[in-house]
Amino acid sequence: MPKPSHRDRLLHVGMQVVHERGFGGASVRDIVQAAGVPQGSFTNHFASKEAFGLEVISRYAEAARGRAAATLGNDALAPLQRLRAWIAADRAAQADGGLRNGCLLGNFTAEANDCGDALRQRVLEAFAETQRRLAECLRAAVAAGELAPSTDCDETAGFILAAHQGATLLAKAQRSERPLAGFEDVLFGRVLPLAGPSR
Amino acid sequence: MPKPSHRDRLLHVGMQVVHERGFGGASVRDIVQAAGVPQGSFTNHFASKEAFGLEVISRYAEAARGRAAATLGNDALAPLQRLRAWIAADRAAQADGGLRNGCLLGNFTAEANDCGDALRQRVLEAFAETQRRLAECLRAAVAAGELAPSTDCDETAGFILAAHQGATLLAKAQRSERPLAGFEDVLFGRVLPLAGPSR
Repeated sequence: MPKPSHRDRLLHVGMQVVHERGFGGASVRDIVQAAGVPQGSFTNHFASKEAFGLEVISRYAEAARGRAAATLGNDALAPLQRLRAWIAADRAAQADGGLRNGCLLGNFTAEANDCGDALRQRVLEAFAETQRRLAECLRAAVAAGELAPSTDCDETAGFILAAHQGATLLAKAQRSERPLAGFEDVLFGRVLPLAGPSR
Repeated sequence: MPKPSHRDRLLHVGMQVVHERGFGGASVRDIVQAAGVPQGSFTNHFASKEAFGLEVISRYAEAARGRAAATLGNDALAPLQRLRAWIAADRAAQADGGLRNGCLLGNFTAEANDCGDALRQRVLEAFAETQRRLAECLRAAVAAGELAPSTDCDETAGFILAAHQGATLLAKAQRSERPLAGFEDVLFGRVLPLAGPSR
């Protein structure tokens, strides 16, 4: 395997630093120090901190896409089991970070209202992609008879995305999985309009 | 009315600056400039930026407490109408900020994982207080026959708090009230275990 370039290393380590400290809280100096590369490397590879931020968001979204493909896209599972698997995979990723970091996309959104429109657009695309995948999974659940035919899959997917972000935020605040467990309980117990046996 | 002191002015204007730019993104220089007071005022009145942050959180929580008292605590309304009034009051406050700022408590939580344990504890207390008020309102709704007697009011209150934070975050990302409207629809349409006429 070729040695990772300074660029790869800056993105790999820098994503972690941004995830932990926020985009505003992670200075270029912090990032190059954590990556163990010369400061000049950063300016060689990225035209600006914003250009770096765009790549960090894309890289994080790519990882989220991978988790979604392996779970929401796993045709070997019944549709609602795919949804449970997606929640479990995300929860494991949060637990890996000691429940300290939350979601990088949510953090970008929250941390400032002027983080730059290009960054906000990239975050929005990532959110929209997740919402689309969730809606597809819900439609598959309707088709499989797991959810009521009247389910508004797009609205429900939007609600799931938002409620999941909120549970992630509260889990970070409390350093506890409890909000994530409560989210899953209420989602499957009440939010999803399960198809009854008589319908 | 006495002229507001520099301290009041720093807190009043500083809260707005922190709400817009995040705590990390708002430097002491930004805050004193926005408040139009000499830099020395800040150090006269606050032992540290963290001490200032604690007061900002308390002040924001106080405003949230006022909105909750006027809505969730409004005995002239039926309990679920109190909940709707709380959501509407918060939504109006978000719209006032052009849907750009989100919730200051959520922002503090999201922006960094090392913002200081004292700050995180203060945020947690404010979240816990809102959750308690929501749970009280749900218990009143059960007592009034609006919600099913089997309602787990504490779990549901935790879910509402988290889902509301998430909807607020997505509204900020999208600069749109749509996630807030979706939250309210799903909350009243499905999450709340309404007491049926036959129960």
